[in-house]
Amino acid sequence: MNGDNIPDVKSMSDAELSALCDRLRNKIIETVMKNGGHLSSNLGMVELTVALHYVFDFPKDKVIYDVGHQCYTHKLLSGRADKFDTLRKLGGISGFPKREESEYDCYNTGHAGTSISAALGIAKARDIKGEDFNVIAVIGDGSFNNGLVYEAFNSVSEINSNILIIINDNHMSITPTVGSMHEYLEELSNTENEERAKKLRHETIFERFGLAYDGVYDGNDLRLMIDKLTQIKQKLHEKPIILHVKTIKGKGYRYCEENPQETHGISAGNTKSTEYSAVLGQTLCDMAQTDKRIVAVTAAMTPSLGLSEFFAKYPERSIDVGICESHAAVVCAGLAVEGLRPYYAVYSTFLQRSFDQIVVDICSQNVPVTICIDRAGISGSDGETHQGEFDLSYLSIVPNMTIAVPKDIEEFKKMLLASVDFGAPLAIRYPKDGFKLFDSENRFEFGKWEILREGDDYAIIACGERMIGLAMAAAQIAYENGISCCVINARFVKPLDVAMLDELPHNNIITMEDNALIGGLGSLVDCHYAGSGKRIKNFAYPDEFIPHGSVGELISKYGISVKKVSDYIIGNAHR
Amino acid sequence: MNGDNIPDVKSMSDAELSALCDRLRNKIIETVMKNGGHLSSNLGMVELTVALHYVFDFPKDKVIYDVGHQCYTHKLLSGRADKFDTLRKLGGISGFPKREESEYDCYNTGHAGTSISAALGIAKARDIKGEDFNVIAVIGDGSFNNGLVYEAFNSVSEINSNILIIINDNHMSITPTVGSMHEYLEELSNTENEERAKKLRHETIFERFGLAYDGVYDGNDLRLMIDKLTQIKQKLHEKPIILHVKTIKGKGYRYCEENPQETHGISAGNTKSTEYSAVLGQTLCDMAQTDKRIVAVTAAMTPSLGLSEFFAKYPERSIDVGICESHAAVVCAGLAVEGLRPYYAVYSTFLQRSFDQIVVDICSQNVPVTICIDRAGISGSDGETHQGEFDLSYLSIVPNMTIAVPKDIEEFKKMLLASVDFGAPLAIRYPKDGFKLFDSENRFEFGKWEILREGDDYAIIACGERMIGLAMAAAQIAYENGISCCVINARFVKPLDVAMLDELPHNNIITMEDNALIGGLGSLVDCHYAGSGKRIKNFAYPDEFIPHGSVGELISKYGISVKKVSDYIIGNAHR
Repeated sequence: MNGDNIPDVKSMSDAELSALCDRLRNKIIETVMKNGGHLSSNLGMVELTVALHYVFDFPKDKVIYDVGHQCYTHKLLSGRADKFDTLRKLGGISGFPKREESEYDCYNTGHAGTSISAALGIAKARDIKGEDFNVIAVIGDGSFNNGLVYEAFNSVSEINSNILIIINDNHMSITPTVGSMHEYLEELSNTENEERAKKLRHETIFERFGLAYDGVYDGNDLRLMIDKLTQIKQKLHEKPIILHVKTIKGKGYRYCEENPQETHGISAGNTKSTEYSAVLGQTLCDMAQTDKRIVAVTAAMTPSLGLSEFFAKYPERSIDVGICESHAAVVCAGLAVEGLRPYYAVYSTFLQRSFDQIVVDICSQNVPVTICIDRAGISGSDGETHQGEFDLSYLSIVPNMTIAVPKDIEEFKKMLLASVDFGAPLAIRYPKDGFKLFDSENRFEFGKWEILREGDDYAIIACGERMIGLAMAAAQIAYENGISCCVINARFVKPLDVAMLDELPHNNIITMEDNALIGGLGSLVDCHYAGSGKRIKNFAYPDEFIPHGSVGELISKYGISVKKVSDYIIGNAHR
Repeated sequence: MNGDNIPDVKSMSDAELSALCDRLRNKIIETVMKNGGHLSSNLGMVELTVALHYVFDFPKDKVIYDVGHQCYTHKLLSGRADKFDTLRKLGGISGFPKREESEYDCYNTGHAGTSISAALGIAKARDIKGEDFNVIAVIGDGSFNNGLVYEAFNSVSEINSNILIIINDNHMSITPTVGSMHEYLEELSNTENEERAKKLRHETIFERFGLAYDGVYDGNDLRLMIDKLTQIKQKLHEKPIILHVKTIKGKGYRYCEENPQETHGISAGNTKSTEYSAVLGQTLCDMAQTDKRIVAVTAAMTPSLGLSEFFAKYPERSIDVGICESHAAVVCAGLAVEGLRPYYAVYSTFLQRSFDQIVVDICSQNVPVTICIDRAGISGSDGETHQGEFDLSYLSIVPNMTIAVPKDIEEFKKMLLASVDFGAPLAIRYPKDGFKLFDSENRFEFGKWEILREGDDYAIIACGERMIGLAMAAAQIAYENGISCCVINARFVKPLDVAMLDELPHNNIITMEDNALIGGLGSLVDCHYAGSGKRIKNFAYPDEFIPHGSVGELISKYGISVKKVSDYIIGNAHR
């Protein structure tokens, strides 16, 4: 599975290792600048990863990278250097650990905080099987805020299997890490107040959880890292250990060191669109000026969600809870029961973490929390664990939930303005890039769809900007082939516009959505029309995980394209 | 909204308060013995709750009870004594806090660990609005294991609003509380080693999160509680406080004090069934004897899930992680990537907490974790937050997931035996009570349904013991009315038995399931038959939260009964 291109790190001199680090950095910078990807986090991890490969025996020993976006050096050292040019490309290597890709990747990650639980599971399995290898979880200080970490800590004694937890502390999530745990890590590693720090290190809170604490406060010093890991490896048979490593995010590339936030993730290429996040930020700022009830809540992604300005302007009504999506949802419910209007902005894939809190805290209490779901639908190059293809499905299950899907940024703005007086749970889902597709003089009403184009032969029911765009184009091609299609903007997936569905005279129905087929718009329309005899064709994503690639490639390959839809219409028109 | 029956606690003497506590205990015991409910946890909370009502001003001040099953004294003191006889009865008062029921209930709870996040949200809202009241979260030591607690602690400084957190430490979840945090609480409150404890209390880990620590180590001493709360109330304007209160679970009723585990929850009446949990426990024990790969994982509910014997017999292959459903799922994935066969037993409603980990850790890695989902479908008297009516819906969304629904305990056992070599994610869902309904000599195959009764006029597709039972009875009534129904055991909801569906000659289809309509078996069948022209009627639960009541009452009222189904068949047979 792996090529022969695995450098023999263990036999290298310090000078050779240092040169290797330089080559790795250059390769990472060069590739990310071309393909996009996570830059600063990977640059900071070079020495730590090389030291791990120097000291431990992979793939016999196992390392789990939390979230996993910092695994580039690991990939370059484990037989994937020759394919590294294909990083994040359709069919190329993933930007995250993938068991399918290499035996050096023992556990797939993508969402924060799972590495310690997974390491405990793997170590427990090792002990049950009577095998002998080391298990290492590498977790950033941002992920370290997640509740899974505490749940794992709490069961270290119960599971009773030794692991090494390495905190890669670079002060940053995407933004500077928030929270008391991070402040504590700062104090522990404050070499400027070494006396206080030493006192703290003498008995850390980690000992309470049965973990021995150790630290390397310059984790970009390769020799220091190697020596410490060598020393720790000896002790790993005795007890679980937590190693606190300070690294510099963006290390070795000055622009990144100075701008870690902007260079956390790099996009390949630029689009000329307005981002939905910008509309969210601007509109919420405007609304908050006159409406004192509006509060913005995020989980460590404030800038990517467009809310930096809101946080700067209304700090007393801004809450960044760290990478804690479950907690964020409950805080919102608490704000809402007291009459405020919380806006919880979050990426679709991470909102999965709030599912139970959406059911119990938000929807069973039926309180007015508005969830602004960014990166919904295909999100692209981060792959399986980051696609936002399930939210229409898991949200439509929940009683009292209303799901809105704007057809463009103008309609998104209108929905936001109307949301504040909606008075019940509301989710608005949208992709990253937005356009002003339509002149929206038409009236907007909750639960009501609109007809964008008239036509007799087919009714195309589509939701969201991407699908509306494809639907209009397919309808035009059909028209040029003598078939007329009605195009409907299904701007609410829950509730469906049942009145419109019941009045539609068309026998041929098409649905289009940027979501999995199961449980999405198409399924809901199918159920509504069950037994009606209408001929229905659903365009949506199949029942499989969708890997990395560009947004356009993936939508087309796994689901929907103008050609697929227009071919279907033309091919089936006279059945 | 509240009656006049609110005792004026504040004006009572100590002797009167003590007599009140006795009356409250008697009322709780008497009611729970008749209606079922949570007994020991409520008996332990009497003095603490009376003290809260003595010191604070409800409903102006707000108290949130974590999980909420310990709120009986609060209900009795806040105008619901005259309705307390209706506890947990259909149409009566709920066993959990309900905003709909009283202004004294400010936040609905049901699942563990939300109280601190909710309190922070409510306190933040208070500060934004410039109001002045106290916010109190009361959380048991069992819930205190949940990751939400850590997420909330971590954002105390960010949210910067003062709250009082009371840990009701009675050493118990349903079973004795596990984990390092609990051991730490034990040390802090160890009055037998007062010197060590005092030293620990001097600088607790809670101070690291900006919380001042205080303790009452005999929380059943009412005067002590009142004095401490009075003192703390003065300081609440300055900073957030955590008050560690030791109580005795079952206090005041000797049988409960000695058997807190058995008296945590009391069922009203007894059934003569075998519980599915007993079959799970016995079968897993048998399997584990010869198959060393089998591991059992629970989240603080080992006995209710039938796994006490397994845990006793195979301690090295048993993991109780505490009330940490997310973590449990990841530990299972970790065990599975190493070739073991983890069985994660959990109640349906709490599995919602693992949704993201099911998607990312279990299903996107496609590893053989078997989830044994107990209390699926209507669970009864605990109400909205405990019904297991969504699992078919949220699991069928997830790629690589197989969902099995046994028709009786014999089939359940067969499924368990077959599961170990299934090699992929598998969920088996079942209710509490089970019967051996059928002689199952017929062959069992993954993904294949079976025909239990032949018939030409209707095909009834039903899943799970409860529905199969109702379907067979309805088919018999129809038969007696000259209409013949085929009854199909849809023992897999994912994948559907597409081959059988495609071959069914019936134009009239009925689906029956113990699940919400949206996303469940009926929806999946509707989608499969979209455009076929078949006439389909789905029996399932409507799109609303289902309150408390007995299982039979709720299934019949909100969804399905023999009469509803047979009436439909007979009324529509000749259309």
